Amino acid sequence: GTGADNDLYINQAIVFIEDAIQYRSINHRMDSRSLWLYRWYYSRTCQWILSLTITLILALAFIEKPSSLTVTSDVRYRPPAWNPPCGLTESIELLCFLVFVLDVSVKSYLVGWEEFWKNKWLMAYILTLIVSLADWIVSLSFFCAENVRIRRILRPFFLLQNSSMMKKTLKSINSTLPEMASVVLLLAVHLSLFTMFAMLLFTRTKDGQQDKEWVVYFRNLPDSLTSLLVLLTTANNPDVMIPAYSKNRAYSIFFILFTVLGNLFLMNLLTAIIYNQFRGYLLKSVQSSLFRRRLGIRAAFEVLSSLKDAPANAQQTYVSVGALLRVLQKVEMDSRCKQAIMRSLKICSCDHLSAAQFQKLFEELDKDAIKRHPPSPEYQSHFMQKLQFAFGHPYFGYLGNVVALANIISICVVLVMDADKQPSERDDFFLGAINCFFVLYYLLEMLLKILAMGLKRYLSYPSNRFDGLLTVILLVLEIATFAVYGFPHPGWRPEFMGLLSLWDMVRLGNMLIVFRFLRIIPNMKFMSLVVTTLLDLVKNLRAFAGILVVVFYAFAITGIMLFEGAVGPLGNTSAVNTTYGNGTLKCGTYEQLEYWPNNFDDFAVSNWSPSLFPSLLRLFTAYLLCVNLICRWAKIYFVAWWLISSVIWVNLFVALLLENFIHKWDRRCHREPLSDIEYQRTVELMFRDVLEEPTEEELMEKLHQHPHLQLCR
Amino acid sequence: GTGADNDLYINQAIVFIEDAIQYRSINHRMDSRSLWLYRWYYSRTCQWILSLTITLILALAFIEKPSSLTVTSDVRYRPPAWNPPCGLTESIELLCFLVFVLDVSVKSYLVGWEEFWKNKWLMAYILTLIVSLADWIVSLSFFCAENVRIRRILRPFFLLQNSSMMKKTLKSINSTLPEMASVVLLLAVHLSLFTMFAMLLFTRTKDGQQDKEWVVYFRNLPDSLTSLLVLLTTANNPDVMIPAYSKNRAYSIFFILFTVLGNLFLMNLLTAIIYNQFRGYLLKSVQSSLFRRRLGIRAAFEVLSSLKDAPANAQQTYVSVGALLRVLQKVEMDSRCKQAIMRSLKICSCDHLSAAQFQKLFEELDKDAIKRHPPSPEYQSHFMQKLQFAFGHPYFGYLGNVVALANIISICVVLVMDADKQPSERDDFFLGAINCFFVLYYLLEMLLKILAMGLKRYLSYPSNRFDGLLTVILLVLEIATFAVYGFPHPGWRPEFMGLLSLWDMVRLGNMLIVFRFLRIIPNMKFMSLVVTTLLDLVKNLRAFAGILVVVFYAFAITGIMLFEGAVGPLGNTSAVNTTYGNGTLKCGTYEQLEYWPNNFDDFAVSNWSPSLFPSLLRLFTAYLLCVNLICRWAKIYFVAWWLISSVIWVNLFVALLLENFIHKWDRRCHREPLSDIEYQRTVELMFRDVLEEPTEEELMEKLHQHPHLQLCR
Repeated sequence: GTGADNDLYINQAIVFIEDAIQYRSINHRMDSRSLWLYRWYYSRTCQWILSLTITLILALAFIEKPSSLTVTSDVRYRPPAWNPPCGLTESIELLCFLVFVLDVSVKSYLVGWEEFWKNKWLMAYILTLIVSLADWIVSLSFFCAENVRIRRILRPFFLLQNSSMMKKTLKSINSTLPEMASVVLLLAVHLSLFTMFAMLLFTRTKDGQQDKEWVVYFRNLPDSLTSLLVLLTTANNPDVMIPAYSKNRAYSIFFILFTVLGNLFLMNLLTAIIYNQFRGYLLKSVQSSLFRRRLGIRAAFEVLSSLKDAPANAQQTYVSVGALLRVLQKVEMDSRCKQAIMRSLKICSCDHLSAAQFQKLFEELDKDAIKRHPPSPEYQSHFMQKLQFAFGHPYFGYLGNVVALANIISICVVLVMDADKQPSERDDFFLGAINCFFVLYYLLEMLLKILAMGLKRYLSYPSNRFDGLLTVILLVLEIATFAVYGFPHPGWRPEFMGLLSLWDMVRLGNMLIVFRFLRIIPNMKFMSLVVTTLLDLVKNLRAFAGILVVVFYAFAITGIMLFEGAVGPLGNTSAVNTTYGNGTLKCGTYEQLEYWPNNFDDFAVSNWSPSLFPSLLRLFTAYLLCVNLICRWAKIYFVAWWLISSVIWVNLFVALLLENFIHKWDRRCHREPLSDIEYQRTVELMFRDVLEEPTEEELMEKLHQHPHLQLCR
Repeated sequence: GTGADNDLYINQAIVFIEDAIQYRSINHRMDSRSLWLYRWYYSRTCQWILSLTITLILALAFIEKPSSLTVTSDVRYRPPAWNPPCGLTESIELLCFLVFVLDVSVKSYLVGWEEFWKNKWLMAYILTLIVSLADWIVSLSFFCAENVRIRRILRPFFLLQNSSMMKKTLKSINSTLPEMASVVLLLAVHLSLFTMFAMLLFTRTKDGQQDKEWVVYFRNLPDSLTSLLVLLTTANNPDVMIPAYSKNRAYSIFFILFTVLGNLFLMNLLTAIIYNQFRGYLLKSVQSSLFRRRLGIRAAFEVLSSLKDAPANAQQTYVSVGALLRVLQKVEMDSRCKQAIMRSLKICSCDHLSAAQFQKLFEELDKDAIKRHPPSPEYQSHFMQKLQFAFGHPYFGYLGNVVALANIISICVVLVMDADKQPSERDDFFLGAINCFFVLYYLLEMLLKILAMGLKRYLSYPSNRFDGLLTVILLVLEIATFAVYGFPHPGWRPEFMGLLSLWDMVRLGNMLIVFRFLRIIPNMKFMSLVVTTLLDLVKNLRAFAGILVVVFYAFAITGIMLFEGAVGPLGNTSAVNTTYGNGTLKCGTYEQLEYWPNNFDDFAVSNWSPSLFPSLLRLFTAYLLCVNLICRWAKIYFVAWWLISSVIWVNLFVALLLENFIHKWDRRCHREPLSDIEYQRTVELMFRDVLEEPTEEELMEKLHQHPHLQLCR
């Protein structure tokens, strides 16, 4: 019937608009039941459950055997960790897998059969699930005794496939890979040519006294390559050249040439290439987001214009305002935007909207979210108004900053004076009394500010929230101290009582005070610019951070698989003693540098250890580490880690930072800062000036290609 | 008389055009004698003498006491260096000073009295000369026995003031300083807050077992600051956190937070700021160069239009072509440009030139220098033509590359096989025979290419010149080897003869072969782009390199003054032995790392030592170095060096590289590479698309402000 048709059209329009808001693709099934499933799937609860599941399965690595639940990771002091019994983590895993199976089936159904075959991400998702489940079954049938669990390496994929931003970013990175590969190739050529040079320069000599350089760093091809590779990371910067340089000054030319060409030119060239390439791709991805938004809005217009209550006009199609209002009531969107659109509709006061008008209405979505602070309370009494003026004035805030600075300086002075004192000689009276006074001032400041601004306005500023929270915590800490240890007096040095000693409580208070000092940031213009840039960056960086998590996770699990226990065998106390006792050992080996906590024995430390690559690789020439770890694999592992995390990811980060900062800097001059208004900007808004609006033809062509929607015309 | 006036005008026009070509200021005296002096001063000979004098006075540091004329700088092995007798270097210095006095007086005279007082560079020049001469007199009156010689630190100023590019760059850097200072301030705040945190976190504990972190890295305020500062350079990256991390995993959060905020955010922010600021200033300086050029040309037009043979026209001024031709004959300029202008004048075939036409004529100066390769010889014989086709074909070049690669691989294989052999076991026959064959092939390839391309065309390609030169050197080396040691045969292991042993000669040959392999670069598209970018960069970087030399020089001399002999006293063999014998010494002190050659005992090594700052500063907590060097000064010195050379200069370099590369990359797509044409571009040409032409009014206003030129109108 017509009514059912109309309902379907309204529902389709709702989903299209929601797709537009979320920058989602509109290529999904469009019948009533599918639409219901689609809205259910993208409802907040469902998405929240999915995110929780992903977090859960990723976090499992911390408690799975080998678990990270020890205070230290140092193999010398580490007690045997608690490992969950077989079946505990496995059953949680199974639960997660079931959620993923549900997720992938709903997704596949919604996308439709034809689209499914084109969607490589969905295929990979299913494949990952199958492999994971198979591995899970194998694991259980061995009663959790087997060590190689492929499904642990595959886990980050679940995080990756769930975020369209991350998939987009990965695509961008993928497009820059050929250029990056060229520079990496260039680096490899540079490295290999210099290695050959080095091997020809530093050879074994007949007398055996002069060839120290050869013995330590250039004994054979792998050693020479490693030495120069580590020189590229600057980790062994002076050490590698000392023996040769000590023989003859001229040898330094070789190392200077290598460093200048490799580090200064080629490495920075990589930055330049990544910046240049990535700049374009970020813009492109934002452009495609804009296209998706416009397409969703246009699709909503098209289905609404098919409604029977629209006037039949051969030339132009129209949408009735009533239908749009019906749609708007049911759409889940930011209430600010919804109200703004409703307001525009009322002002317009027309019955029918053309496509352009319709599109224009929804441009509200692209605008900056503007946040107004609530007004200050209006006092009747003259005295109160004067108080309000005095304590609402910026100068009162500056005074607070000066007091905070004075507090910091007093702590610093006490720290310097107490630096060399024995713990038993320390007198906590001075610091206790001072901090008591300062915390009282902070409390007074907070209360007066709330009086002047009203609680709502006070809390609407992030700096006040930060300030107030820390003041309250400090107050609680101070009261707790006095309750347990009494008021401070000269010679105030009580014994340990309760949860924390007095010394620890004072230290904690001091740390909070140092932390509270960060409230000065918004008062300094340049600092505030820098901090807002950094905060923006963090927002825009979520996709990058996700990819970094994926990489970290995969590398950490691989590290555990390859090197678990590798540092252990020699790490017991007796072995250390014999090692130290052996006078022939070179200075700077793994044991002597006491790198014990850097191993691959559990997930938490395995995440951290590879980032120490340069320092570790520096030691590879010392044979001790090579005996412990499987030498060649370890090298490949560390070099891969260094290339991906340190070289490529850091350069991507620099590119993004450059991009963000330059845009922000340019805008700083254009826009007058208004005191009461804050702008919230996203990466889409940053590029708004340079984005191109998609044309009508492009939109309609795309709409006609929709697999599940037959437009009337 | 009118003839004398006309001659003066012609001479003025000549000087103005030469100023325009060299981007010089036109604000100098304009009478006949001054013009002669001006042309003489800027003649090639005079400028060459001046450059030579500057080089000479800078190079003096290498032979002055303490001289760098020893093979090694290692205090353990260094023989007493030859020091020049008192009066030798001093007399050379006096000679240089006299040249500088002449230079400054000519410059001051030419600029005129009024301009002189405005010119701070000239004033500083005179001041530097006075101080230097006074110091020189003091030095001689002490018979060269005094150590503090201020004039040595002042020397780089002579380099600085002689280059207008360097002065301009310094101005640019100066303008970015406020922004840089903000970030450095931010870094300082970051560092000091984290230092306070660290001092509160890592305190002395009662049992004295758990406070290893406190003992080694955070004992007091200066130690804590140093530890974190060095962490900022990543030199002590894992070491500093190991004791705390070994106690509890959670301590790593502190270090990760510090590193991420400091290294990842703030340091890269510095890059972003410098790139953003510097981008503008480079463009601005190029814009002002363009203005100088247009102004010079316009000034020449104005004086030529005052010639009596010009038609008196009230509305517009003209210049006769004859006068311009007279000027052009006498102007010293690139012959290519001169011919192009003459040609245009002939084509124009008009008698008089308006200002716009005049300006347009000289736009030839702004154009890319285009270099055409001479044509190949045309052979009559059919056979020769076939040969020419075969050996002129790119494939023949590729074959040469393949052969060079094969040679490299064969050397590599021999190196790997011989890596662990005793020198007495080595058999040089295989490598000797192989190299002999390859060198013959290279010779043949060169001769065939010369046959195909003709000698002139062959030499016009830089890659061929490189190739040919190395082939000839290899041939000479090979012939010399056979002459001394006879032909290779199995068991070819002759005794040492002549200047080099056979082994050294073979090694030298191999190195040349590896070096020759770089000829493949132009054949690989991306590599060729990268290399041309780098070469461009080197051209544009001259001013930067100059400033770097100035900074290096000043730091090296200061280093010698502060720390000369500081590493010496403990450096004699007996002290080393006792040091090693003392079991309480920590691993990683100066002596044990054998950093002996890194001292400040002469200029050559003093240039190099501060760049090892992070590795040296890492050791400051080890008390040994602090006893040797005056600890606090050394820290300030090294931190200043690190900030200036490593942080600021490297970032400036990155900014310039980004700028160059992005321009180059953008242009790569626009312009079709023509096989026979090479473009030579300068920094001015890189920005040509974005430069603004100065308007007529601006030029005339500037001209009317000229202190020594009265224009008729």
